[in-house]
Amino acid sequence: MPNPAPRSGRPRSVERDVAILDATLAMLAEEGYPALTIEGVARRAGVGRPTVYRRYPSRPALAVAALAHRFGLSPTPDAGTLRDDLLAVQRHQVEFFNDTAVSRMLPGLLADLGSDPDLAARWWNEFVAPRRASVHRALERAAARGEIAAPADPEWICDCLTGPLLARAFLGGPVRLDPALAGATTELVLAGLRAPAR
Amino acid sequence: MPNPAPRSGRPRSVERDVAILDATLAMLAEEGYPALTIEGVARRAGVGRPTVYRRYPSRPALAVAALAHRFGLSPTPDAGTLRDDLLAVQRHQVEFFNDTAVSRMLPGLLADLGSDPDLAARWWNEFVAPRRASVHRALERAAARGEIAAPADPEWICDCLTGPLLARAFLGGPVRLDPALAGATTELVLAGLRAPAR
Repeated sequence: MPNPAPRSGRPRSVERDVAILDATLAMLAEEGYPALTIEGVARRAGVGRPTVYRRYPSRPALAVAALAHRFGLSPTPDAGTLRDDLLAVQRHQVEFFNDTAVSRMLPGLLADLGSDPDLAARWWNEFVAPRRASVHRALERAAARGEIAAPADPEWICDCLTGPLLARAFLGGPVRLDPALAGATTELVLAGLRAPAR
Repeated sequence: MPNPAPRSGRPRSVERDVAILDATLAMLAEEGYPALTIEGVARRAGVGRPTVYRRYPSRPALAVAALAHRFGLSPTPDAGTLRDDLLAVQRHQVEFFNDTAVSRMLPGLLADLGSDPDLAARWWNEFVAPRRASVHRALERAAARGEIAAPADPEWICDCLTGPLLARAFLGGPVRLDPALAGATTELVLAGLRAPAR
C-alpha cells in the first residue's frame, strides 16, 4: 500500500510505533523488565534512540505502553448478567497472566514499583485503574438490575478477582494457571457478593 | 548466664544463629532480597563468613530461613469451626504481608524465583507448603464435621485465601492492606465453599 503524501510535517509513523512496542514486548519476554533498555529497544526496532525517547520518555513509560498495546483495554463487557461480565474480565486476566512476556516481566516490574514512583504511577493509572473501572461499571449495572447489593468497596472485589490468579501464577507453586480458573474466580466472587452479611 | 561446658566439640551456638537470622531480616528490610549478601550478613552479625556458610549454604537458604525464623510455623489452628481456623491463618498472613522486611523483600524474591531454582524450591517447600498443609488439615477437619464438602482442590482454596491479600499488598494500588481483610477473605472463601455447585 503506497504511503499517503505527507501533510504538515511528517505524520507520526504508526508503523514505527508498532515496531517499538513489539520490540519492547519481545525484549520483556526474553529478558524481563530489569534488563529492558531504551537503547536495546531502539536497536531491535531499527530506529534511532531519539525516535523512542520522543514517544516514551522513560523505561517505565515504554514498558507500560507495551503492555497496554498487547492487552488493549478489554472492551467494557455488558453481557446482561454479572456472571457473564465478570467471566469476560477473568478470561482476559488469565490470558494476561499466562502470556510469555507478562510472566517473564511482571514479577520484576512489581518488585521495582517500590523504588520507582514513575513506574508505579504509570502501571497503576495507565494500566490497572482503567481495567478496574470496567469492573466497577459491571458491578454498578448489576446493582441497578437488582442482581446484587452495591458493594461497599469495589476495589476489594477487584482484588478478589485478580488475587487468586496472581497467587497461582506468581507465588512459585507447582500448578499452572488453568483457564478454568476464570470461571472459578467468577463463582467465588459471586458467592461472596451474595452471601448474607454477618 | 554462663555458657554450659562444651561437650563433644563446640555446641551449635543458638545465639549466633539468632544473630545471623536477625541480621538477615534487618538487611532484607533495608535493602530487599536482590541486595542481600552472605558477606554483609556476616559483618552485621559479627561472625565470620564461614560461620554463616556452615549453616546456610546459599543466599536463598539464608533468606528463607530468616523468614521462617521471624514468622515461625503458625500453630495449626484447631478452634472447632472452620471460620475460626481460617481467621487465625488469615490474621497471620496479614501480619506477614504487612511486615516491613517482608514488604521490602518479597516482591524481589518472587521476581527471582524464575531464574533461581534453589530459591524457588526452598521458598515453596520450606516456607509456603508447610503453611498450606495447615490449611489442608483445617479443611479436612471441617469436612469430617460436616461443615463443608471436602474441596476438590485444597491448593486452590489456599490461592483464594492468599491471593486477595497479595493483590492488595503488592499490586501497587493506593489502598493499604487492612487487618480487617483477614475476616473479609475468610468470609469470601466460606461463601465460595458453601455455594451450590453450578
